[in-house]
Formats: sequence, C-alpha cells, structure tokens
Amino acid sequence: MDERALVRRIKRLSEGQAPGVVLGIGDDAAVFRPTAGEDLVFTTDMLVEGVHFELQTHRPSDVGHKALARALSDVAAMGAAPRFCLVSLALAPACGERWVDGFYRGLMGLARSTGTALIGGDLSHSDKVTCDVVACGAVPGGEALRRDGARAGDLIFVSGTLGGSALGLNCRKGAAWRRHLRPEPRLAVGSFLRETLRATAAMDLSDGISLDLRRLCEESGVAAELDGPLPLFPGATVEQALHGGEDYELLFTVSPGTVVPAEFRGLALNRIGRVMAGAPGAVSRGGQPLAALGYDHFRK
Amino acid sequence: MDERALVRRIKRLSEGQAPGVVLGIGDDAAVFRPTAGEDLVFTTDMLVEGVHFELQTHRPSDVGHKALARALSDVAAMGAAPRFCLVSLALAPACGERWVDGFYRGLMGLARSTGTALIGGDLSHSDKVTCDVVACGAVPGGEALRRDGARAGDLIFVSGTLGGSALGLNCRKGAAWRRHLRPEPRLAVGSFLRETLRATAAMDLSDGISLDLRRLCEESGVAAELDGPLPLFPGATVEQALHGGEDYELLFTVSPGTVVPAEFRGLALNRIGRVMAGAPGAVSRGGQPLAALGYDHFRK
Repeated sequence: MDERALVRRIKRLSEGQAPGVVLGIGDDAAVFRPTAGEDLVFTTDMLVEGVHFELQTHRPSDVGHKALARALSDVAAMGAAPRFCLVSLALAPACGERWVDGFYRGLMGLARSTGTALIGGDLSHSDKVTCDVVACGAVPGGEALRRDGARAGDLIFVSGTLGGSALGLNCRKGAAWRRHLRPEPRLAVGSFLRETLRATAAMDLSDGISLDLRRLCEESGVAAELDGPLPLFPGATVEQALHGGEDYELLFTVSPGTVVPAEFRGLALNRIGRVMAGAPGAVSRGGQPLAALGYDHFRK
Repeated sequence: MDERALVRRIKRLSEGQAPGVVLGIGDDAAVFRPTAGEDLVFTTDMLVEGVHFELQTHRPSDVGHKALARALSDVAAMGAAPRFCLVSLALAPACGERWVDGFYRGLMGLARSTGTALIGGDLSHSDKVTCDVVACGAVPGGEALRRDGARAGDLIFVSGTLGGSALGLNCRKGAAWRRHLRPEPRLAVGSFLRETLRATAAMDLSDGISLDLRRLCEESGVAAELDGPLPLFPGATVEQALHGGEDYELLFTVSPGTVVPAEFRGLALNRIGRVMAGAPGAVSRGGQPLAALGYDHFRK
C-alpha cells in the first residue's frame, strides 16, 4: 500500500456528485462554489488514539463515524446544513489496509446520510492514529446560531438525554456504549432551532454541560440557573449528565414565551434552566454554584 | 494553563478584521461570507513531530510558520488568494506556554503577511506534537489552476531553485537550512500564472519533482520529458533537486508560444521540459525513464 494507491481507494469511496463541489480529491486543493446569499460555517475536530479512542476497543468504522460526527455536531449547533469535509489522517504502524478501509467506510456512511461530500484531506504517519476533520456547513446569510445571544430571562433547553456517553465509557456495553461509539449529530434539531424556534443561542455538548453551559454564558455575558430536572440517559447518574463529555446533544436558549414542543422528530426537548443577569459564566444548580468539571485537555 | 486560557491567548494573537470573516475563534464554528462570483479552494496539511520536524532542532516559531506555509503553498498552486485558516494542534507533554506562544507567533507572522485570517481550530494532546492546518483561498469562478490541464506540446516550467530543502535537511546550516525551516508559499507567482500566463496546469513541489511531475502527468493523461537543466539551489545536487521534498516551488505548464519572463518579482522561472503524448505519468530525463523516488509516507 503506497500513498498513491491509498488516495485512489479513498477517492473511489468518496465518489458521487455533490452540490457546489467543482473539484474533489486529487489536486493540490479542492474547489467549492458557494451559493449566493449563504454564509459558510467551518469547524475542525481532532480525534487522537489514546485520548479519544483505543485501537483495541474501537472498530475502525466507529472511529471514522465519530471523527465526522464530532465536526458535524458543531455544524448542527450553528443551525447549518452540511456541505463538505476534509479529512487528515496520520496512520500508526498497526493500521493496515483493512483498518483504513473500515475507517473510511464508517466516515462515508455518516457523510452520505447527512449530505456531506468528502472533498480532500492529507495522509501521514505517526506513532498514534491521529485524525482531524474539518467540516463546512451552509446557512442563510446572517442566520447562523451563535453562543453569544442568550439574554437574561431566556429559557435553557437541551435535546435528548445526558450522561449516556460517560456511562457507556464506564460500562462498555449495551445502548450506552453504542451511544459513546456512534453519536448522531443533531442536524435536524439545529435547523429547527434556527428556522422555527429562532433560538437566541446554541452550542453542542462535547465536554459536559457544567463546562459547556459556562462557556455559553461567558460568551453571552450572562449567568444561568439549572432549575429543572436533567433528562438522564437510562442508567446514567446526575454526575455523568453534568460533567460527562461527548453527549453531542444541543444546548440552546429561547426567548421567554417561545413555544418549544416536548419533542422534535422523536427527540425530547427539555427545559432545564433559565438565563439570569449575573457574573458572566456563573452557573448554579439548586441555589449552589456548579463547578465546571467537564473535560479539559490541559487541566493539571 | 487550561484550555480556556489557551483559547483566549490564541484568540488575542489572531485578532484583527479580515474580509468575509463574520465570526472567528470562540464559537462552535467560524462563519465566513463568500464574495459573489468567487470559487473557494480548500486544502489541509498535517505536520507531525518525528516525521516533519523535531522539537530539538526546530524552533516553535519555525514549526508554526511551516505548518501554514505548506497549506498556503497548495493555495498558491491553485492560483488563489488566501482568505483564512483553521489550526488543529495536539500538544505533547514537553510543550509549555512558551512553545505554544512561539508556534502561534510563527504561524501568525506568515498569516498576517499573506492576508490569511486565523478563524478557528481545535486543541488536544498526544505523545507527539501533531498539527493540521486547513487553508482556504479564493479565485474568480472557474479559474482555479488544476493538475489536469497539461496537453502534449505544452512547456514545463518551475519557479525558483530546487533541492535547497533536502540540502538543508542534510547540512543543517546556512541558507539551505533556512530554506528548509521557512519555506515561502509562492502566492504572487500562482496569481501571475493564473491571470497573466494562463498556465494550463500547476501544482506545488512538496514531495520531489520526480514524483510530483508524475502526479501532474497522470492527472492530465500525458507524459513528460525533462530536457532542460534543473535550476539548482546553490550547493544542491541533481538528485536532491529531482527527489528531495519540501521545495514548495511551483511546477507549471503553459501552451507552446506563451511568453514566460525569465523571472517574476525576483524569482526565476525556468523551462525544464515539455509535455508529450505517451503513457500517462511516464516521465523521462535525457531519454531515460525517471524513477519517481520522491517522498511517500507509506512506501515500504
């Protein structure tokens, strides 16, 4: 397997027409033609062996799925529709053709089901498998959902249930483990938040709500109180729901009076708190300050 | 140093207005507003400790410069003007605040001088420093330079001199070592090729001309003969010029009869060969087939 053969395999796996893609894999750069009136959103997410997954326990197709799912979750949080992605992959010595094929099959499965074209990337090698996915989505000009629009009085909601990924990482079986391995980016919810609910702010939950809600509040210059019950993944603890990472649900705020349905396409939408005036980033629960114990790569 | 403090530092280093950037670092995704009538080009390049650089011999500012230079070299090869980049960085335990600051200072120095906004990225950790840069450039719709437009009879040119980076990696001193550490993306040349010379094909030389010219010929479905002297970096051998990687000069073809100046803004443009009908990808020199010995990550 040389680099040229590998690129040919990936190119074959990624084939198919996609709107706006003028030139895909194989040149110095891919070429994309934007649609007039649309803004483009860009996000990039790294997945590192030994940090985000293990070769022993994660199948290559799960790694490929998750690598793209993490980036598309950010696209969903902006209320955008996916357009394309580029994938950089450093392979470890243990990764042969079967691993590479599995990785790209998992990634392309999610890419196809979400309308995301694979238009480029880079290949390298390293001691540990390292993958970086950049994803692009499109929204009508000026309509991207942001973190900085929450105002005192807004209501705080979350999609789905929390703590499932942390539970799965702990027990390594059943529905929770599948949740951890194969998160689903909430793209339809994101579009619904933007188009119909006109959410004032939104973000995806990647590092635990205790840390992520603080980030949203800091960007918006507000405080927050979690005064509702947290929707728990079956079997998950409140601690897993508060501080566990990788749930990839959407956290969002709406103006008071907004009618939010109890569910959207089978996914629950639960009110969990309210935005308040106060020290930017201060989050409380049951009247007590809530420590931001979610995942941080660099905390000592 | 926690992740939040680190993001704040990077955000401060990257500040400044840039055309089209609606929202930069700090949200789930960055937001970019394209200019009507322009195509966007996208490329991504990984830089891995132990493969592309060593912490002992490469200063952090050189690593940051080179990480972006590699991606911008691809933007140049498309004849595009840089717009923005996103940077994913996995830090090794040995990298403290000073390393991180140095890395981003080196990267932002090149970003500022080329009009490239830093609009997002991701942070992680790993055993080895791993960096992935995605860069975006813009060209008038339909005008991106590609690899697949070379036709029999076209003339083959290269910008600058070859072999300097391989020589530098070997001797680790003087102008050649600086050339290896701090390649300059040939952005002005790329625009000149597109606007003025109407080059039929172009690519950047990242893996050695013996391998890269084969790639261009394969994409164009043509053969090539290197029948002119190679412009050698002072002190470099012909082997370093043919098979050494990371020169980041532009390889391009023009229709016969195109008047190509001897230099453009101080950088030599030399005719080194001609495109011929023949087996796609077949490259010869002095009447003999030329082995593609340039750099391949996966060749055994």
